[in-house]
Amino acid sequence: MIEPTDKSFARIVQERIDNLNKPKGSMGRLESLALQVALVQQTLTPQLSCPCHILFGGDHGIEREGVSVSPREVTWQQMKNYGRGGGGVNMLCRQHGFSLQVVDVGVDYDFDPAECPHIIDRKIAHGTHDFLYEAAMSDDEWHKALHIGRECVDVCRAKGCNIVSFGEMGIGNTSPSSILMHLFLHIPLAECVGAGSGLDTAGVRHKYEVLKAAVERFKASHSPALSDAETMTRYFAGFEMAAAIGGMLRAAEHRMVILVDGFIMSACMLAASRLDAAVLDYAIFAHVGDESGHRRMLDAMGAEPLLSLGMRLGEGTGALCAYPIVQTAVNMINEMDTFSHAGITKYF
Amino acid sequence: MIEPTDKSFARIVQERIDNLNKPKGSMGRLESLALQVALVQQTLTPQLSCPCHILFGGDHGIEREGVSVSPREVTWQQMKNYGRGGGGVNMLCRQHGFSLQVVDVGVDYDFDPAECPHIIDRKIAHGTHDFLYEAAMSDDEWHKALHIGRECVDVCRAKGCNIVSFGEMGIGNTSPSSILMHLFLHIPLAECVGAGSGLDTAGVRHKYEVLKAAVERFKASHSPALSDAETMTRYFAGFEMAAAIGGMLRAAEHRMVILVDGFIMSACMLAASRLDAAVLDYAIFAHVGDESGHRRMLDAMGAEPLLSLGMRLGEGTGALCAYPIVQTAVNMINEMDTFSHAGITKYF
Repeated sequence: MIEPTDKSFARIVQERIDNLNKPKGSMGRLESLALQVALVQQTLTPQLSCPCHILFGGDHGIEREGVSVSPREVTWQQMKNYGRGGGGVNMLCRQHGFSLQVVDVGVDYDFDPAECPHIIDRKIAHGTHDFLYEAAMSDDEWHKALHIGRECVDVCRAKGCNIVSFGEMGIGNTSPSSILMHLFLHIPLAECVGAGSGLDTAGVRHKYEVLKAAVERFKASHSPALSDAETMTRYFAGFEMAAAIGGMLRAAEHRMVILVDGFIMSACMLAASRLDAAVLDYAIFAHVGDESGHRRMLDAMGAEPLLSLGMRLGEGTGALCAYPIVQTAVNMINEMDTFSHAGITKYF
Repeated sequence: MIEPTDKSFARIVQERIDNLNKPKGSMGRLESLALQVALVQQTLTPQLSCPCHILFGGDHGIEREGVSVSPREVTWQQMKNYGRGGGGVNMLCRQHGFSLQVVDVGVDYDFDPAECPHIIDRKIAHGTHDFLYEAAMSDDEWHKALHIGRECVDVCRAKGCNIVSFGEMGIGNTSPSSILMHLFLHIPLAECVGAGSGLDTAGVRHKYEVLKAAVERFKASHSPALSDAETMTRYFAGFEMAAAIGGMLRAAEHRMVILVDGFIMSACMLAASRLDAAVLDYAIFAHVGDESGHRRMLDAMGAEPLLSLGMRLGEGTGALCAYPIVQTAVNMINEMDTFSHAGITKYF
C-alpha cells in the first residue's frame, strides 16, 4: 500500500525555499523538484543516499512480427555487454555513483553464469508470447515479474538506498508501451506509435498495422468490464516492464524517489499509476525523448520532464542523466544560505 | 588569436561515435556535444580536467535609473555571500568539483580583505557610469577589464584546466545585455527586454523606456561607422561583462571548452563572437532561461542549449548545472564499447 505524500507539508517547505538567498522562483524547476523530494522524505533537509539502478531484460513475442528494426538477438548481446560494463548504462552508473543490478527476467538466451557473473538470473520464460495472438504472459508469470521487481527494490532499500531508477532492454518493447498509452489514455493508436530504435516510414506503418490488429483482437476477446489495468498490462507488457512496474510500486511503498526514464519506463509508470495512483507522488520524470507520443504521455500524467536531449537509447540512460539535477535541488535546500542569515536585503 | 576548430576532423569523430554500441543517433544531443569537445581538443579521446568557474562582480551606473527590482547593495552582499560559500554558485562548484574564483572588478563597495579573504580584488572602479548619459566605461577601463578576464583564465589554465565557465553578479546587468542583443542582432528592443530578477509589467515598461532613451542617445552621438562591436560593448557593458568577454576570448585561444550560462553570459558570448567569431567553436550553451529574448539570442548564434530549467539566478549556475552532461558526452566516446568489440549485431 502506497501512502500519498502529505501535501499539507508543502507550505512549510515552500517558505524555506523562498527564504533562500535568491530572487523568488529564480531556481526554476529545481525549486519544484526540491519541494517534491522534501515531501517524499517529509523533511526540510532531504538527502539522497545510495542511488541504485535496476535494469530488467526480457524478450517479446511481438518481435516475431517485424515491429522493430533491431533483431531479437540484440537483447542478449546487449545484456552481456552491460554485464561486462560496456554499455551506456554502465558508464552513467559509474559517473553518478549508482549501484547497478542487471536482471534477466525473460531473455531468450541462456547466459552462462561463468561467463556472465554480473547478470542476475531471475528468468521467468524465454520471452513473452506474441500478443498478436494471445496474452503476452500468464497471470502467474505476471505476478512473478511484479514480485521480482519488488524484491530487487528491497535489495536496494536494504543497502540504504532512497532513490532508484529503472531501465530496460527488450527488443520490441516500444510496441507494448504504445499500446498501453493508447488504452490508458484513449489517444488514437497512430499517435502512440513511433520509430523505436530506428524504423523508417514503411516500418512504422507496418508496426502500426500489427499493433492495431493486436488491440482489435484483444478487444474482441475481452469485454470492457474485464479490461482493467492489470489485465491490459499483463496482456501486452514484457517481463522487463512488469518487473519495473512491480519495482516502482514497491519503491513508492518504501517512500523512495523514483527516477523515470523515457518512453518505455514512462509507459510502465503510467501502468503503475493505474494500479495505485499514489505512485506518481514519488516519480520524477527525467527525460522526454523523441519517440512519438512521449510528450503527450507525460502531459497526461502532469509530468514536467527535467531533460530533453533527444536520447532514445533506453537502458535507463535518460533517468541517470538527470540524477545530478535532483542532487542539485537537494543541495540547494540544504546548502544555500538564507536571506536572514546571509544579511542580504530581501527585495521582494 | 583564436584558431577555429578543424572541421575536417569531424568525419573521423562521427565515425567513432556511430560505431559505439547503440542505435545510430540514439544518444541525441550528447552525440553532437561529444563531437564538439573532440573537435575542440582535436582528439578521439577527449578529457575534461580541472574545471574552473570564474565569477566576476561589478555594479552598473544604469541601476540608478530604477531598471532593476533589486537594489545595488545586493551586489556586494551577494559577493560576500559567495566569499563565504553560501551562494548557489558555491553549492554547484562543490557538487561538480569546480574551483571557483570570485573576482571583484567593479563592485561599489570596499571589501575588507580580512573579512572577505576569498574575494579577489581586481576592482577597476566603484561601478560603471550611467549609460543613459555617457559611456559605461572608458577605453582604458575596457581594456583593463578584458585583461583581467584573460589573466583569470590564465590562472585556471596553469592549473591544468581545460573547461571553464563564467558567472556574474551585478545588479542591473540584464539591461546592457538586452541592449547588446538589440544592437548586434537587430531585434526590436522591446523584444529584448525582460523582467530581470523580478520586475512587474510596469517595471519592465519603465526599464524599456530607459533603455530606449539610452540607445537613442548613443546613436545620436555615434555615427554608424563608429558603432563597431567594441565601441558598442564598451558603451553599455558592465566591468563584470567585459571581464567575462576577455576571459571567453582567452579560453578559446587556449582551446578550452567554454560553458556559457544564461542571458547575460550569452550576451557576453555574442559580443565576444563579434570581436572574434571563432570563439563560438569553443562555446557550449548550457541553459536557456525565461528572460525575454534569450531563446532568440541563442537561435541567432546557432546555439542548442543543453538545459531548460527555468532558472534565472545568474552567478553561472545554469552553466554549472550542465557540466555533468558534458562529462557524460565525453565518457560516452571513451567508455562505451563499440559494436565490433562487443560482438553485437550492427543493425543499421
